[in-house]
Amino acid sequence: MATAMVELRAWLGEISDLRRASAVLQWDQNTMMPRLGAPLRAEQIATLERLTHERFTSARTLELIEAAEPELDGQPADSIEARIVSEARRTFEKSSRVPVELATARARAASHGYKAWVAAREANDFSAYAPVLEENFKLARDYIACFDDYEHPYDIVLDDFAPGMRTSQVNELLGEMRDQLLPLIEELAGRSIDLAPVQARYPIDGQRQVVDRVLRWMGFDDASWRLDDTVHPFEQSFSVNDIRLTTRYLESYFPTGLYGAMHECGHGLFEAGVSPELQRTPLGTIRSSSIHESQSRLWENMVGRGRAFCTALTPLLVEHSRGALDGLEADAYFRAVNTVQPSTIRIEADETTYGLHIVLRYELECLLLTNELTVADLPEAWNTRMREYLGVEVPSDAQGVMQDVHWSEGLFGYFPSYAIGNLIAGQLWARARTDIPGLDDQLAAHELAPLREWLREHVHRHGSRYSDNELLAQAVGESVQVMPFISYLRAKLGDVYQLDLA
Amino acid sequence: MATAMVELRAWLGEISDLRRASAVLQWDQNTMMPRLGAPLRAEQIATLERLTHERFTSARTLELIEAAEPELDGQPADSIEARIVSEARRTFEKSSRVPVELATARARAASHGYKAWVAAREANDFSAYAPVLEENFKLARDYIACFDDYEHPYDIVLDDFAPGMRTSQVNELLGEMRDQLLPLIEELAGRSIDLAPVQARYPIDGQRQVVDRVLRWMGFDDASWRLDDTVHPFEQSFSVNDIRLTTRYLESYFPTGLYGAMHECGHGLFEAGVSPELQRTPLGTIRSSSIHESQSRLWENMVGRGRAFCTALTPLLVEHSRGALDGLEADAYFRAVNTVQPSTIRIEADETTYGLHIVLRYELECLLLTNELTVADLPEAWNTRMREYLGVEVPSDAQGVMQDVHWSEGLFGYFPSYAIGNLIAGQLWARARTDIPGLDDQLAAHELAPLREWLREHVHRHGSRYSDNELLAQAVGESVQVMPFISYLRAKLGDVYQLDLA
Repeated sequence: MATAMVELRAWLGEISDLRRASAVLQWDQNTMMPRLGAPLRAEQIATLERLTHERFTSARTLELIEAAEPELDGQPADSIEARIVSEARRTFEKSSRVPVELATARARAASHGYKAWVAAREANDFSAYAPVLEENFKLARDYIACFDDYEHPYDIVLDDFAPGMRTSQVNELLGEMRDQLLPLIEELAGRSIDLAPVQARYPIDGQRQVVDRVLRWMGFDDASWRLDDTVHPFEQSFSVNDIRLTTRYLESYFPTGLYGAMHECGHGLFEAGVSPELQRTPLGTIRSSSIHESQSRLWENMVGRGRAFCTALTPLLVEHSRGALDGLEADAYFRAVNTVQPSTIRIEADETTYGLHIVLRYELECLLLTNELTVADLPEAWNTRMREYLGVEVPSDAQGVMQDVHWSEGLFGYFPSYAIGNLIAGQLWARARTDIPGLDDQLAAHELAPLREWLREHVHRHGSRYSDNELLAQAVGESVQVMPFISYLRAKLGDVYQLDLA
Repeated sequence: MATAMVELRAWLGEISDLRRASAVLQWDQNTMMPRLGAPLRAEQIATLERLTHERFTSARTLELIEAAEPELDGQPADSIEARIVSEARRTFEKSSRVPVELATARARAASHGYKAWVAAREANDFSAYAPVLEENFKLARDYIACFDDYEHPYDIVLDDFAPGMRTSQVNELLGEMRDQLLPLIEELAGRSIDLAPVQARYPIDGQRQVVDRVLRWMGFDDASWRLDDTVHPFEQSFSVNDIRLTTRYLESYFPTGLYGAMHECGHGLFEAGVSPELQRTPLGTIRSSSIHESQSRLWENMVGRGRAFCTALTPLLVEHSRGALDGLEADAYFRAVNTVQPSTIRIEADETTYGLHIVLRYELECLLLTNELTVADLPEAWNTRMREYLGVEVPSDAQGVMQDVHWSEGLFGYFPSYAIGNLIAGQLWARARTDIPGLDDQLAAHELAPLREWLREHVHRHGSRYSDNELLAQAVGESVQVMPFISYLRAKLGDVYQLDLA
């Protein structure tokens, strides 16, 4: 019985192994590999990706899918087995439209691009970076040209990270969000908060101790997790029991390391919380980066910068600061980390202005992919929009158009996830506060398990079993909405600035 | 022109990429991976190995080899292209006899076995280790059963690490070596040397600084090399510019960390010195572990424990010892690290008794593979031979039969390489001393480049282009011999013990 299904699962299990193997090579490249190892590593990753693509798009996959489908008779459409088959079919149909040479070229360009980006950013040399961008955008346009079922060309890259979502919906959500954020930021302009607590020089050794403690509160343990340093923080997992976090410490601004680590740990908790029975299936890795980002940003901002958890965090920060934060009060810390302060760097942006950094990137990506903007004109377009949305001057390309890793690795269609993730986080957060009695008291006592388990139950364990809309419908009873996030933000900022913003 | 050759090289390049990828997963497993990541990692490695095996043993490989062979007309038999084709044919013929299920099972057992060994050794629990050994020996016997062209079953596993060598030759070489070593050790019995210099408690931080300096003298640099901690030190490379060393530090015995690192760096210099044009070909990775071990042991013992280099090493050791070695003289250090002292642990054995540890393992491996000894009887057989050859009592299985990683990973046929490597190192060392004027003065001034470049010229750059015999014929004008090593040893020990041993 169910032989075809068993065979399909074994076949997809191998595909999953190969993808995880490629992820190990990438993790190593970005954390451990000596610099001159790059060219051969790019070949190794390209070969693995090509082979995986070849196998997944081979006739064998379709044959196994078609043999397994009749065995699903009588099973609910959202059963695990039915969803394994439908997800396999969906991704098969998408992948098999892309020639293997193009998939390989994209993988190779991504690997070379990352290294070129690191060097160009360090040298603040956009001219060294431009050819890499040209190549990546060209390959992305070639990729889009493999498809025809879209309203807008951007739909195709968007769908890689937010299956089923359309550019028109993103336009609507980000438009409403922007229209809510601009006046809110306006209302707060000119109001100042004492930033001394976050401007203290904080020894990096001390930061490491703080981060270690906070991550363990969240659920990090040495048997299944690692934390390493890198240039651009990321999270990767190779199984539910092999979760890799990275962060970056700045002596001059400790929130970068701390909140970067909480952010990545939020991603890690999602990967660690996937039901083990989904491992080595297409549902065991996360297809929706919006849901993924909702988890990282919920832990970073709603927990990490919330008044309750700041109560737990403040004495820990004082303890490891070697005197730099002596006498700090939780209220002052809470207010300092929630200041609204337009600035040039996305990953250092506050929770409120952050969304506008995303709107800017999303708009430029769309224009570049549709050839309405050239790479040569990109720095100026970037700087102009920074002035327009955030009212700030970009001091250098390294701190401007070259600040993010994404485009260097050919990652287009991803940026909206950060903003939509915030919106989803707003919805989940509102529901969790209703569902978990005494949540604030728990957070203030750094008891994070009840929240983590609530998220595991409603989000993590399902992996990619449900679409974003299905998952949200089950968890909160509605599709993606802007207003829960905005209401949360206005309430918090009212508290921070002691204003009535509701 | 030469299209088939170009296609064969591309195909073999992919195979090489996949093997390197699998090596990255293994390196990560042994240095970085959280403990609970093991089961899925074993699957990932098994899938990669199976796929690589399938590809390499597919009809496509033979087709490309047969198409390329006629294109070699007129090329010397030892040209790079001719050797790529002949090495591809040799390994194709060997691999294609092994069913893919067996190759997969061996890879999976190796990965599980390593973790089981770490745990069993830590718990000193041979009964937890025995099933792993049973499985690995059984799979090795199944592997041998795939072949028929041998004089002795052990020939088959030996040939994996020393292509073309026979068990009868190993018996002869190791027999002559044992017959030379036993009386030499006898002559020195009861003579004592002051061991205080190596028994000082040496802070591990200081050891790291010493090792860092010594490796840089040898050629280590951050652009292409890494050094990490592990339980059982090893070296791996993923390209000529991505060399990974590992070592293990003991506060109570610093030579373990220092000479372990020099040993692995000797391997690393070989991998780093392979001509870049051999990368991604079958000649770019080293098939002969005897030659490989000749490099590690030459650097560890002939350089590292030589009187000349001890002159450079002693002040460095004093400097980082936090007082523990104050007043140490190079002569006393030289004598202490060359003491002949039979003991139970191979990797801590002195250069002279080391060979007998290998003879013991080699004999037991042969008996286990031919079913003349059972795993249940192994600990007793081990302990009996330790008494017979080295006159020592084994205090526990953890310090006895479970001390080495090799069998846990199904690595049979490898141990002789260590002893034969010593013999080859003796031959190369004798020739290098003639070829390089002022070598001792250079070593005393830690100028290691001339020796490294001599080795690169005569050994490293060729990768696997030549058989051991061909390589030795070019470098020293003879095949593997026992006496150069014995003469070197007698001369050094005469100096150490102030006796006439020549």
